[in-house]
Amino acid sequence: MSYKNPLSISHEIVSKYLGEGDTAVDATAGNGNDTVFLAKIVGCRGKVYSFDIQNTAIENTRKKLKINDLLNRVELINEGHQLMDKYVPPGVKVIMFNLGYLPGGNHQIATKPKSTISAINKSLDLLQVGGIIMMVIYYGGDSGFEEKDAVMKYIEQLNYKKYSVLALNFVNWLNCPPISVCIEKTSE
Amino acid sequence: MSYKNPLSISHEIVSKYLGEGDTAVDATAGNGNDTVFLAKIVGCRGKVYSFDIQNTAIENTRKKLKINDLLNRVELINEGHQLMDKYVPPGVKVIMFNLGYLPGGNHQIATKPKSTISAINKSLDLLQVGGIIMMVIYYGGDSGFEEKDAVMKYIEQLNYKKYSVLALNFVNWLNCPPISVCIEKTSE
Repeated sequence: MSYKNPLSISHEIVSKYLGEGDTAVDATAGNGNDTVFLAKIVGCRGKVYSFDIQNTAIENTRKKLKINDLLNRVELINEGHQLMDKYVPPGVKVIMFNLGYLPGGNHQIATKPKSTISAINKSLDLLQVGGIIMMVIYYGGDSGFEEKDAVMKYIEQLNYKKYSVLALNFVNWLNCPPISVCIEKTSE
Repeated sequence: MSYKNPLSISHEIVSKYLGEGDTAVDATAGNGNDTVFLAKIVGCRGKVYSFDIQNTAIENTRKKLKINDLLNRVELINEGHQLMDKYVPPGVKVIMFNLGYLPGGNHQIATKPKSTISAINKSLDLLQVGGIIMMVIYYGGDSGFEEKDAVMKYIEQLNYKKYSVLALNFVNWLNCPPISVCIEKTSE
């Protein structure tokens, strides 16, 4: 079912907003799964910009796109997502973030609060009205609490007249389940 | 869009789970809108049980069903929802609750923590595996805080091996926006 876990929720919500011919951003390419997901939806007339500061993430994403014959509609950018405004024109429909460490990966390699909030701030400007930022925030164990707290504090104070911020929590799960957040831009 | 407010979220999620021929319960008939919504989805082979302790709510719901030619598939029960196990057989797919006062209505007429938790408890037993309880919790102003706190405390301790409890909050809205909660029964 569609609401089983934070990942399936984020894909379910994104698929409600994103359509053929749209522009989308994967702010954290990681293993490339979200980039492939977005590229399939926007179709050959659409465009996806995919960022990662780690070169191996970009190369893994490139391989996955090639296998799926989707490379033609994706621009891979080996750069921190806080610089996305230098590469992406305004009018974006969906921007996806996976924050924190890669599940199953090295907890030392993770997004950091300051650059993350800078990237979210720029994402809000790049969105078209009716567009969304879809984030999954991973934290727990030895890492991620500082970023989770900083991001939640930042998004809770966003002007409700311009943005609607929906947080989705599995409140009876153990061990800090990831939080999904959908921010919709409702007016300029 | 589908994730604009707590009501549209609850309908979006319910429509993912409920299908033709299913059995559903409206635990709080109120103005009848959810009963009509459920009755349309389950179709003529399905069944909806609709509860309200207030006779006027039952009569208003009856009128709405009649206008929509849906009365044949709904059983209206003028009784508190904590007694639903006396009327509803097990194997239910979706049970909807609107908790708290009716928006725009009298804040003195509201569901109460003790009977609400008893009704949720019975609902969990009546659900089939893969079925859900979908709640919207209204609170704020002069009322509803006690019930909201009691319900959240109760559902947060539900066994994660049997139930998955997803809470959806508009974290940047002012004045206590309603909380949506989806409880899925994942095993017996």
